[in-house]
Parts: sequence; structure tokens; C-alpha cells
Amino acid sequence: MQNYKAPQRDTWFVTQEVLNFDAHYKALGFEDTSEDLLQAIYAEGAKFAENELAPINQIGDQVGCKFENGVVTTPPGFKEAYKNYVENGWPSMAHPEEFGGQGLPYSLATTLAEYFSGANHSWAMYPGLSQGCMETLKAHGSEEQQQTYLHKLISGEWTGTMCLTEPHCGSDLGMLKCKAEPQEDGSYALNGTKIFISAGEHDFADNIVHIVIARLPDAPKGTKGISLFIVPKFLPDENGEPGQRNSVSCGSIEHKMGIKASATCVLNFDGAKGFLVGEVNRGLNCMFTFMNMARIGTGMEGLAATDAAFQGALAYAKDRLQFRSLSGIKNETGPADPIIVHPDVRRMLLTQKSLAEGKRAMSTYCMKLVDQTLYATDARLKEVAEAKLALLTPIVKAFLTETAQETTSYGMQVYGGHGYVAEWGMEQLARDTRICTMYEGTTGIQAIDLLARKIMGSNGRLLNVFADEIRSYCQNLRSNQQFNVWSNSIESHLDEWLQLTDEIGERAGSNPDELGAAAVDYLMYSGYIVVGYFWLQMAVVAQTKLDEGADDPDFYQAKLHTAQFYFDRMLTRTRSLISAISSGSDNLMQLDEALFGLSQ
Amino acid sequence: MQNYKAPQRDTWFVTQEVLNFDAHYKALGFEDTSEDLLQAIYAEGAKFAENELAPINQIGDQVGCKFENGVVTTPPGFKEAYKNYVENGWPSMAHPEEFGGQGLPYSLATTLAEYFSGANHSWAMYPGLSQGCMETLKAHGSEEQQQTYLHKLISGEWTGTMCLTEPHCGSDLGMLKCKAEPQEDGSYALNGTKIFISAGEHDFADNIVHIVIARLPDAPKGTKGISLFIVPKFLPDENGEPGQRNSVSCGSIEHKMGIKASATCVLNFDGAKGFLVGEVNRGLNCMFTFMNMARIGTGMEGLAATDAAFQGALAYAKDRLQFRSLSGIKNETGPADPIIVHPDVRRMLLTQKSLAEGKRAMSTYCMKLVDQTLYATDARLKEVAEAKLALLTPIVKAFLTETAQETTSYGMQVYGGHGYVAEWGMEQLARDTRICTMYEGTTGIQAIDLLARKIMGSNGRLLNVFADEIRSYCQNLRSNQQFNVWSNSIESHLDEWLQLTDEIGERAGSNPDELGAAAVDYLMYSGYIVVGYFWLQMAVVAQTKLDEGADDPDFYQAKLHTAQFYFDRMLTRTRSLISAISSGSDNLMQLDEALFGLSQ
Repeated sequence: MQNYKAPQRDTWFVTQEVLNFDAHYKALGFEDTSEDLLQAIYAEGAKFAENELAPINQIGDQVGCKFENGVVTTPPGFKEAYKNYVENGWPSMAHPEEFGGQGLPYSLATTLAEYFSGANHSWAMYPGLSQGCMETLKAHGSEEQQQTYLHKLISGEWTGTMCLTEPHCGSDLGMLKCKAEPQEDGSYALNGTKIFISAGEHDFADNIVHIVIARLPDAPKGTKGISLFIVPKFLPDENGEPGQRNSVSCGSIEHKMGIKASATCVLNFDGAKGFLVGEVNRGLNCMFTFMNMARIGTGMEGLAATDAAFQGALAYAKDRLQFRSLSGIKNETGPADPIIVHPDVRRMLLTQKSLAEGKRAMSTYCMKLVDQTLYATDARLKEVAEAKLALLTPIVKAFLTETAQETTSYGMQVYGGHGYVAEWGMEQLARDTRICTMYEGTTGIQAIDLLARKIMGSNGRLLNVFADEIRSYCQNLRSNQQFNVWSNSIESHLDEWLQLTDEIGERAGSNPDELGAAAVDYLMYSGYIVVGYFWLQMAVVAQTKLDEGADDPDFYQAKLHTAQFYFDRMLTRTRSLISAISSGSDNLMQLDEALFGLSQ
Repeated sequence: MQNYKAPQRDTWFVTQEVLNFDAHYKALGFEDTSEDLLQAIYAEGAKFAENELAPINQIGDQVGCKFENGVVTTPPGFKEAYKNYVENGWPSMAHPEEFGGQGLPYSLATTLAEYFSGANHSWAMYPGLSQGCMETLKAHGSEEQQQTYLHKLISGEWTGTMCLTEPHCGSDLGMLKCKAEPQEDGSYALNGTKIFISAGEHDFADNIVHIVIARLPDAPKGTKGISLFIVPKFLPDENGEPGQRNSVSCGSIEHKMGIKASATCVLNFDGAKGFLVGEVNRGLNCMFTFMNMARIGTGMEGLAATDAAFQGALAYAKDRLQFRSLSGIKNETGPADPIIVHPDVRRMLLTQKSLAEGKRAMSTYCMKLVDQTLYATDARLKEVAEAKLALLTPIVKAFLTETAQETTSYGMQVYGGHGYVAEWGMEQLARDTRICTMYEGTTGIQAIDLLARKIMGSNGRLLNVFADEIRSYCQNLRSNQQFNVWSNSIESHLDEWLQLTDEIGERAGSNPDELGAAAVDYLMYSGYIVVGYFWLQMAVVAQTKLDEGADDPDFYQAKLHTAQFYFDRMLTRTRSLISAISSGSDNLMQLDEALFGLSQ
């Protein structure tokens, strides 16, 4: 099995050389984020991912989580890795110093989350879910709640969950049934069943803090009657330590295609004591804080899987000897050439490489926007960042994870039949990443969020804010002879994108199903253009570095070649997508439901 | 879990109403294939698939094959289902009466293979592999070999395998190392290791007949030094019953992503006694007989998985209530609408449906061609069938299995997070079918076979023979007002296909890597056009049936709607593929091997 290596060099390229994080951090008041410190943190994070998490990834899949009498046992080494993670202070990195955090930026922790997920998707979900819980409490918890829970969560002593889904309601939270009845002491008694709760029960920590949505007895129907609660597994005692066991229990764990070392729990709330977070019936608004970050986090998982699959496929393609190159023998002393000489193997590798690097640039840009929404004091900067982030979040979530299905599948395909066998690790990557287009809102949900809620809902404003950025970047390259073919291509794609958006909006005016009919293809179409815009930026920076006589010209040459591949063979995917989108909704809606299944 | 239902109605539509199998069978001298008999056989096959194979599919995945001390134990119920299969005479259906067969056409057995694979991919592989062994012996075995082995194989008492792959050689069989040394008694002693041998060891039958490729000591290097051998697990005694145990043994079985109930064996040959089949050093030619049928069989597995995933997704989409339709409430008495009202869910379902039905038409057409190559006495008919089949075989193999990855993934996606959980069976379908683009020659190998070997290798003749058929069909529709938009579309795609082929040929003249650079996208591009041609035919037949006042107009209406979807949203996928193909090979070849992996 290929060992995972964290892409530190590429992180540096994207953060510092393309997106200028040094200036970005300074502008937000982070004075301690020197290049030396950042490089040291990336290197330590890489080491933890490579040496602690990657080695237990395969056994995690083989052994999985075990469930017995309400107790979940994680696979060998998982608990120990978490202990190490806590002892090294990783959980507290991007949290406020007042709660024991290190006060470093969100983006720094999120880059490391890519490494952790690339090394071990299942393991990385435990701390990942805790982040969601912490962000919710930071944004919406009372001071007392923050004091009680944040220290323990930020130190990593306790972990957290987000409890949304119920058996009959996944995306459609308006159908939520879980009940919360007010008690005399000001707390609430929660009753109901939640499913698909990641890290809902485990053996990593002394306590688990569940964030739960539920309805008060008199709550309005639908999403306007949802309230948010803290339900700790153990109620904190007067010293803040785990006290009385609360009546929330794990009923079972799911048997899944992948992420087998991540405990996906059914949680039963049997009169469990809960504490209201924020205002009654405003729970869904509180959830959105968490959900946006969780969606970017899920996108990062797709990126990480793409990179890990690329690393595995590349190693095999250089090693495996099979056939001679059609254009002449390349490995004269061997019995055959390494398969990397074959154009179709290169097509698969370059699809992985161009998507891994392009998606890293795009998601890192989103982290930069998150930093600005969290820390900027300049109201205008914050507002623009919020607008761009609102637009890009569903694209990052869905595009990065959908393309991960293809890239992890290529990870297997490069290996041929060996890719199907467990020992090489490629099939695990494909199975693990398959969940990413489904959890935290399916691709279909993201696509409707993008097209209906964000773009149409803002009358195009959110798209225009980002479109202005792209156009201005491209216009600056018009006189650049080396890059104007690519920048013209991005600009004409942008024109097409805006026009397409108008056309869909017009059709949707008379028929709202036009939005749903276009949505997923529209999201993917947008994703290819956005990543193309980042490839243009990366190519320009690479050429500048080459012109400046950089120490590692190979790295930058590879960027230019990979950009060429992206423009020729990835961006062109927009051609079929726009054809499909333009065909409208009739071809989807006119077939009567009863007529779908008449083949038997 | 959705129960599998064999698509008998659609089989009837494709075989009889579109492809006129009644006349086809009569022309080939099958006088007993009355409509009544065919319908009875389809119905019995459906019953066996639905009642015997589908119920053990999930347990097969959960329990898998067990290996201990050289012995493979198949999952509960598998052996019994095989016994039932043999007792009902299924194995002998399409084999000659002189060896105990029923003398029915190949196409009939292959349609049933779709049902069996749709119900239980793993189980269906055991008899599937036997077919390969039988076809090889029928075509290349000596009379004595046929007498010794074919009766037992055709009755199903014994099963067979095909032993090609070795650890260091998969596609590139020229690197084969397995040795065969001539013995004094005229037999050969085989030494070596074969891997990935499906059904290499199991508990279904009294004997296993391995067809093995190996090299004689003085054989020329490469593919011209490969000979073919029969190596039975038990050497037949004088009564033709299993006698002395031969020294071929199972060393282990693979732990795989899917098809867990199919034993994928490492076979060790330790001086095993083998008998030469055909001529020395001509083994690869003998293998091609089998390989072409095996490739169509693999394509059928992709079709079967697509249909099974569609059935599962459709049932859930009608049942699961989530959100209201954007165009108004559809299920007034329920708390939400069934998700089939949502355009994006319909997009996924129609992708599955249009591919399942289109692929069934295409593969059934290929079965018809196989029938003609096997049974036709008219030399011209046979020759044309061979030409078309040579062209279409790699497309059927690769296109039907590549699209199965998307359609089984949609099977999960329609279920949301539930699709990722084992109990619903959708994730098993995706895992099981994932092997299909890798075994029996990867998609890359099929694509080179199509473009380099078949099309360029025949100077375009093989493509032209099939192109003439398409053109003539479309020209007959030019004056048909209802269908000329679609037939013009197919015809202009055909023109583009031919021109594209010329362009690639021209570029390849100076740079052979152009073939590999285009191949996979070219194969998929061809596949969408070919399936489009069959959708055109199906639509025309459906309209004719409606005009004639057919009893089940809904079935035909659904065909017309589904054709519309295919033309609008599937055939348009050629737009991106042609852009990628036309970009040439430089974007793949110019990146130096050393520059691929510099991100870490």
C-alpha cells in the first residue's frame, strides 16, 4: 500500500504564493503567523497524519467499530491516536485563547484537516464533528454554556456531535419529530430517535456533547418550529467534570460501505436532559453557522481523497511494468515499460492531479473567505467575503466530492484488478469517499441551495460579486501573450455562465421545476469554471516564479503542464453540461410517475 | 431491500419487437423457438433469478467465501442454488445436443445471464466462467477432449475456469511465465502461479476444469509462445469420473471490494498434469474465442447492475417522502411529496432507465450477431456479423460497464445516506459492479482494441460496415416528420464520428500516442452514439405499436419519453468527449514522468 504523504509543498504554493496568506493573516491581525511558524505547523501536521493516522487507516477499515450493549469500541490504535492528538494540542489550534485555544486562524486548522482526512478519513471525522459542535456553541451558546463546555471541547477532553437526521427526515428537517418538553428547572426533556450520528458514541473521550434539534410541544410546524439543545452524555457536575449519566444512549451502529472506523450511531433520547441554545424556534438558523463550515470540511474530504488516490495511482504507474510504449521502448533494460508511459494512464493521473491541485486552490480560497468572515474588522471586506462564501460553499461541498468519486475510481482503475483487492488500499479510498456526496446535504441539495437559494434568491447579486473578481483578473491578462488564450477562455465561460443563469431564471419564472432540472448540472458546470479560474491564477504565478529563477523550476513547470491539461480536457466538460442544462425540464417531468417501471 | 425483478417485458420488446428475433431464429434454422417457448423460458429464468438467486445475494456479500487449508466454502445457499440450476437443466441450454445440450441459441442463454447477474452477480460468475471453458473446448478441443469434458461441463456436473493472469502480468500476456514441460505420455507438467482466477476453487461441483495458458520450454518470447492446456482438478478416470487429484491447488482467495461470494483464487500449479488444446504456441488465438464472448458477458453484467440499481432507486423514490414539489403539492394527504416529484431525482432515475434500456437493446443486438457468427450458413451474413461484432464487442464491454458505475452510484444517491448503509443493498450493487471495468480487459485495453486494433487495423472497414447500417436506417426516416429530428441527429453524429476517426488516424500516422490519448474518450463517444441509434429504433417501434393500438400503450409511451431524455441529456455527452479527443496527445505526454509527484 502506498503511504500517504501530506502535500506540504502544494499547500505552501497555494496559501503563500497564489493566495498570499502572509498578507492575509497580517491584515486580519494575526501577527504570530510567521513563515517559519506556518511551515513548522504544516510539517508537524504532516508528520502526525503520515506517522500516526495513515498507519491505522487500513486496520480501521478491516476491524471497524464494534457495538455491544450500548458501548462502541473503535478499532485498534484509534483511541491512542486521539490521545496523542489531544496531548499535542491540535484540537485547540483555531479557537479563542479565552477558552484555552491558541488563537490561530481557521484556515490553518482546515489545511491540517485535509492532511488528517487524506491519511485516515474515518479517524478525522471524530475531531471534525467536534468542530461543528464548538462553532455552534461559540456563535450561539450563552456565556455559561460556553464556560461549561468550550474549555473541555477545545482541549479535546470531550468531543461533540451534531444530531439532526431522523429516520423519516434527512434533508427535509421540517418533518422533524424529536420532542423537547420544558422542565421546571429551565431545562428540557428530550424524547426521540436520531440516526446517522457520526461519533455519537465512542471510546475516545470522557464525555460527548450532543447538539440536538427538536421541537417544543407548541412549536409551529415545519422549519420554523425547530429549537437547538445541548444534551451531554454525562451532565457536568459542579466542578465541570462528567457527572450523572444522561438518558441518551446508542441503540446501534450502521453497517456501511466505508468509513467503517467512524461510528455512525442511532441515538435514543429517553427523556434526556437538554439545555436550550439560542432562542426557541430559531434552531435552524443556529445550525447554518455550523453547516456552512461542515460543508467546506466535507469538500476538503473530497479533495483529500483525490490527492490520496493520485498518490497511490502514481506510485503504481511508475512501478508496474506492462507493455511497451506505442512511441518506442522507454525502459530498455526491463521486460516492459512502466505503465505511466501509456497515454490513457496519464489521462487518469492528470485528471486526478489537475483536480487535486485545482480543488486545493479553490477550497483554500474559501478558507481565506471564512477567515475574513470570522476575523475581519473591515465591514466591507467581511460583507464581500460573506457573499462569495455563500456562493462558493455549495460548489465546494458538491464539486469537490463529486469529482472525488471519479478520481478515487481512477485510483483503482490504474491498478487494474489489483485496485479491486483490499490490500492496496485504493478500493477503501473509493468506499470511504462515497459518503461525501450524501452527508451534510446531498449534491442535489447543494445544487438547489446554489441555484435557487443563493443565486436566484439574491437576484444574481452573489454570482455577480464573484464574477466581478474573475472578470477583473482576466482583464488584467488580456495583453499577456502567454496567458490570454486561457484568460479569454475563462472570460467567455464567465459570459456564458451569466447568460445561462439569466436563461434559467427566465424559464423558472413560469415553471419552478426548471431550477431543479438544471441544478446539479449547473453546479458542476460552475465548478469546472471556478477551478479553471484558479488554474489560470496558478499558471500565472508559476510562470512568474520561473521568470524569477525559482529554486525548484520543476514544480512550476509541472503546474504549467497541468494547467494545459485542465484547460484542454477538464474545462471542456462544460460543453456537455450546458447542452443538458439548456434542454430544460420537460424531458424530466413529462414521464408520468406510473410509467417509470414497466420493464418487468 | 428492493427485490430484483427480471425485465421480461423489456426483453420481449427488444428481442421480438425491435430486433425481430422470431425471424432471426428461423433464419438460423432454430425451428423450436416459438413465441410460447421463448416466453416460457424467460419466465422460468426470471423465476429462478428472483426466487433462488436474489434472496441469497445479500448474505453472499455478508458472509463471503471462506478459505481454509486449500478448501473454499461458498456462502449459505450458494451450493444449493447451483444444484437447483443444474437439476433444471439451465447449463445445457445453448449447447449442442451431441454433448447433452438443448441446442437452443446463444442469445437465449445470454438474456437469462442478464437476469441471473442482476439478481446475484457473484453467484452468476460461477456458471459464467464455465461457459468460457466450454466455448474454448467446443472451438479448439480435440474430439477426445470434447468427449471427456464437454458432457460433464454442459450438464453442469463439473465447472470450468480460465487461467490467464499472473502476478506480474495482467493485460500484457506476452510476459507470461507459467511453464509447461512435455512428458513422455504426451501430457505436460505445468508449473507456475496464476492469480485472480474466478471460481478457481469452490464447493459447487465434483471437478473443476482449468483452461490454462503457459509456455513450452523452447517457446518464442512474447505472445507467440503461449500454448493452451486443460488442467483438471481431478484427472478423469477410465469411466470419465473424477479420479486422481491433480497437483493444482488454491493458495488463497482475495479480499475484495465486492463480489465477495465469488471465489477469486490464487492457483498454484506444481507439476500439474495438463493436456494441450489446439496447436503449440497458438494458445492466444484460442483464447480470443472465449474472450469475445466473455467481454459481451461482462457488458451484460454492467447492464444487469444498471437495471437492478434502477429498480431499487425507483422503489425508494416513490416511497420516500421529503419536501414538497416546487411546482405545487403532489401528495396532499401526506406530510411531504415522494421524492420522485423532484426534477433532480428524475434526472438520476432517467439516466438509469435510459441507459438500462438502451444498453439492453445494444447488447441484445450483439447477441444476435453472435448467433449469426455461430450458426449462420450464409457466408455473407456471417462475415458481416463478424465485422460488426468485432467493432461492437469492446464498446459493449467498456461502455456498458463504465456507465454502470454512474448508474449504481445514482442507485445510492437517490437513497441519500441510506444508500450508504448495507441493508438497502444499493452499496453492494456499486461494489459488485466496480470490477467490471477492470476484469476481462480494462476499459483502456478495450479502447485500444477498438481504435487501434479494430478500426485503424482494418483501415476503417469495420466501422464503415456498421456505419452503413446506421446511415441506411436514418435515411429511411428522413421523410418521417415525427422522428427526423432524432434521425438527423444520429446521422450528423455519424458523420462527425467518421470524420473524427479520420482525424485521429491522420495524427496517429506521425505520432502513435495519439491513439492512446484518444482511445477511452473515443470509445465512450462511440457508445453514446450507438446507444442513441438503438433508442431511435426503439422509439420508432414504440410509435408504430401505439399507432396499431397496442394493449399496453403506457409501455410504449414511456419509451418515447425516455428516448427524448436520452437525446437531450445523454447523447449530448458527446460534446465534451469530442472536445477532449480533439485536444490531442501533447497535454498528456509532455509532462515528464519525474514531474508528476512534486506536491509533498
